[in-house]
Amino acid sequence: MSAYATLCQCERDRATLASVGSLLGWDERTYLPTKGQAFRGDQLALIAQLCHERLIDKRTGDLLQQAEAETLSDEQRANVKGIRRLYGRAVKMPTELVVALAKATSAGQNAWESAKHQNDFVSFKPYLETILKLKREEAQAVGFQDHPYDALLDEFEPGARTSDLKTLFKQLQDQLVPLIAAIGQSDVKAPKEILARSYPVEQQRQLSEWIAEQIGFDRSGGRLDVTVHPFCSGIGPGDVRITTRFNEHAFAEAFFGTLHETGHGIYEQNLPSEHFGTPLGTACSLGIHESQSRLWENFVGRSKPFWKANWAKVQSTFNTTLKDVTLDQFYAAVNDVRPSFIRIEADEATYNLHIILRFELEQALLTSDLAAADLPGAWNERFHKMFGLTVPKDSLGCLQDVHWSAGLLGYFPTYTLGNLYAAQFMEQAQKDQPQMSEQIARGEYAPLKEWLTERIHRQGQRYSAAELCQRITGKGLGHQALMTYLKGKFEPLYGIS
Amino acid sequence: MSAYATLCQCERDRATLASVGSLLGWDERTYLPTKGQAFRGDQLALIAQLCHERLIDKRTGDLLQQAEAETLSDEQRANVKGIRRLYGRAVKMPTELVVALAKATSAGQNAWESAKHQNDFVSFKPYLETILKLKREEAQAVGFQDHPYDALLDEFEPGARTSDLKTLFKQLQDQLVPLIAAIGQSDVKAPKEILARSYPVEQQRQLSEWIAEQIGFDRSGGRLDVTVHPFCSGIGPGDVRITTRFNEHAFAEAFFGTLHETGHGIYEQNLPSEHFGTPLGTACSLGIHESQSRLWENFVGRSKPFWKANWAKVQSTFNTTLKDVTLDQFYAAVNDVRPSFIRIEADEATYNLHIILRFELEQALLTSDLAAADLPGAWNERFHKMFGLTVPKDSLGCLQDVHWSAGLLGYFPTYTLGNLYAAQFMEQAQKDQPQMSEQIARGEYAPLKEWLTERIHRQGQRYSAAELCQRITGKGLGHQALMTYLKGKFEPLYGIS
Repeated sequence: MSAYATLCQCERDRATLASVGSLLGWDERTYLPTKGQAFRGDQLALIAQLCHERLIDKRTGDLLQQAEAETLSDEQRANVKGIRRLYGRAVKMPTELVVALAKATSAGQNAWESAKHQNDFVSFKPYLETILKLKREEAQAVGFQDHPYDALLDEFEPGARTSDLKTLFKQLQDQLVPLIAAIGQSDVKAPKEILARSYPVEQQRQLSEWIAEQIGFDRSGGRLDVTVHPFCSGIGPGDVRITTRFNEHAFAEAFFGTLHETGHGIYEQNLPSEHFGTPLGTACSLGIHESQSRLWENFVGRSKPFWKANWAKVQSTFNTTLKDVTLDQFYAAVNDVRPSFIRIEADEATYNLHIILRFELEQALLTSDLAAADLPGAWNERFHKMFGLTVPKDSLGCLQDVHWSAGLLGYFPTYTLGNLYAAQFMEQAQKDQPQMSEQIARGEYAPLKEWLTERIHRQGQRYSAAELCQRITGKGLGHQALMTYLKGKFEPLYGIS
Repeated sequence: MSAYATLCQCERDRATLASVGSLLGWDERTYLPTKGQAFRGDQLALIAQLCHERLIDKRTGDLLQQAEAETLSDEQRANVKGIRRLYGRAVKMPTELVVALAKATSAGQNAWESAKHQNDFVSFKPYLETILKLKREEAQAVGFQDHPYDALLDEFEPGARTSDLKTLFKQLQDQLVPLIAAIGQSDVKAPKEILARSYPVEQQRQLSEWIAEQIGFDRSGGRLDVTVHPFCSGIGPGDVRITTRFNEHAFAEAFFGTLHETGHGIYEQNLPSEHFGTPLGTACSLGIHESQSRLWENFVGRSKPFWKANWAKVQSTFNTTLKDVTLDQFYAAVNDVRPSFIRIEADEATYNLHIILRFELEQALLTSDLAAADLPGAWNERFHKMFGLTVPKDSLGCLQDVHWSAGLLGYFPTYTLGNLYAAQFMEQAQKDQPQMSEQIARGEYAPLKEWLTERIHRQGQRYSAAELCQRITGKGLGHQALMTYLKGKFEPLYGIS
């Protein structure tokens, strides 16, 4: 057996162990009884420790060296490179730090959930402080050239640099702000109150399950469950779980939330299972992952062709609620653009400002330029400056997202990267498949899904995100495609010339 | 740190790892997507392997030796003795056999589920053959004095011997058969068709959750879910999961099934969590475990006082279904005694014959006196002899139970042991608490639950099952208490003098 084959076997075993951690995490956020939370932290910490110990074992280092000296195909070389990257990062992380992070983030997520529920930042503050302290230690342990944030960002978006993102996000913001302002000044107001009418939960649930399957989620290899803060978890081959939440008076929450998580789920379900556990069987980056969720949620799910295909179904599902509503009104309602408090409910234009806010704040938290205690104040001040709104309570402000409680600093920028990638991918897909809009208007999503699967899902980590973007779209990532898309959609909708 | 303390810490870690396997198992039988079954087998096998490797590690042996030489309290000594027992068994089991069993039984349970569904023994046969082969290897590896079955039995009921059980079960059978015959000849027929009326599933679910809480199940530290073959899984402190199944036209299935699993769940929830992961924090034996489930299901749940307390609630829950039924009729219906095909739906008297049948057959399967291929024939022949009924299909015969597909040979006798223990415990509890019947008739279950918790649940494995029985009831296990109970209940009910 070659060192390469042995190395892959070790990685598959480690991934199997890690997948058990994924199930523990999924269960923690869906079905775990309250009193089981403390023990769940012990379980997660143990699995994290075992995975880390396996990865940094001297044997992995030896096998890597030997495999790197073997004659390998391009594919195999990509696999070894990916494992080297993981190993290189992991050996710098003390096991105690890995365990401490697993425990702190398990406790942190539970504390966050109740703090958010009770709008009580003070109860969450000590958990956040512990997590920030550990993330600072992680950045120091992993190392960085320019900015400690680079060390964290690299985990989610390999190769991305803070300074590049600052430039890219600045270009985007400079064009977004005038567009959002013009929309705000338009006389056209979307009838968004339609979406707050009564949508019985059971029908919403059935509709969510139906649309997830329609766009390509395989229910025999996955599930849809209910949670507080929706997520997708790719447990392993044949087992990909998405989640959503239902609110009778918020149609968009469950429907677009489901489309979003389904986009993630379709990516996970179409990774090459023969490469499970190795980089070739793993999603490219979180930015690319998010491109898939945002693409189905927005570029497809909030498009006119999509609503042409689905309006009759949705109207008849909620017939008493929607009998006086037209397709055009509903389409306008799901494309309402206006500043609002909650990121995951934000429209396609203002969404990116939510990310830029978090991107800036988490850098400051990491460098201690901003103390955890001062987070609500800093959040509210910047929010007012960017959105012109006064945050009435922390549950609508700095307590709204799970990420920091889960130790996911450096994760937020991948959402806007996802929007940018999605825009470039869709631009290309429309060139490659000129019939795409007509297909979607007939409810035919398979051609687009196959286009994505072939070019993105099946590639795993064969290419870096930057390489993948270059290969698929013929150019590097920029802000133009997204801005072209947003202007092309919203200027006519809001009568902006 | 003493060797004893270190040993306990190692065992707690190992139990935490094993608890992850419990969650995988629970999920496999409740929520796992179909296509995830193969990978679930890999996950379970890996966890089984890691747990086994930890237990048989030389370090465990060394720590045991050192701990045995330390000055220990009685409690600590019981703990070390229990760990020694586990270690002694495990070191005899080759890791490959442990892994092979984990894989074979994961695949076996899936094959069984579909074989049962399709009434297709032939599709299950190769899985059963593999499992039997591995269980024979296990018996040989573990070793035994009299009978290979002893080696398997000992895992579930430490210290029990096949020859002793044969004698005990024979005594029981000799008294049961005439009682069942007398009931069969009685003119009194229970109106069991009442239980096959329409009981809407949603109301059944609510009633199940309600009664589980009433008798003492803590919902904040547990869950009730739906499965095909109900079970209870004690994942860890604060996380005990029971399952049931609902059939609109079978009131007894969900109701008594829930009471049964709740009995198990209450035991798990009241083990001393400060001893989690060590024998003192672990249930005594499966026979004792089953005594708790059968006690709540039957000795309480099918008693007249219980129905006095709950009849109004049940009648009003299913008011259109039960408006013409009296308490006495319903009480008679839930105490219908007659030969039937399905063990878990059997009445209290014939139930034990189902166990004796399996006890005999699995001994023959283990020794190869009976080939897997001949199981349906042997089952049907013996069943006819014992019950006077012709088995119409294997799903009502040898395919009805999950156990053999899960490798649980040697498990069935613990059900009848449970009935025998439950009878002796209840006899004693009634002596200690003369008001018990009146309390139960008022829906007050806490006094009985506390009696059980103090004497049984909180003891973990401090005493062996035999010692526990002696301590609580002042005598060893026999068939008399159960027969006295059954005769005392059924002779008047069926007009037998």
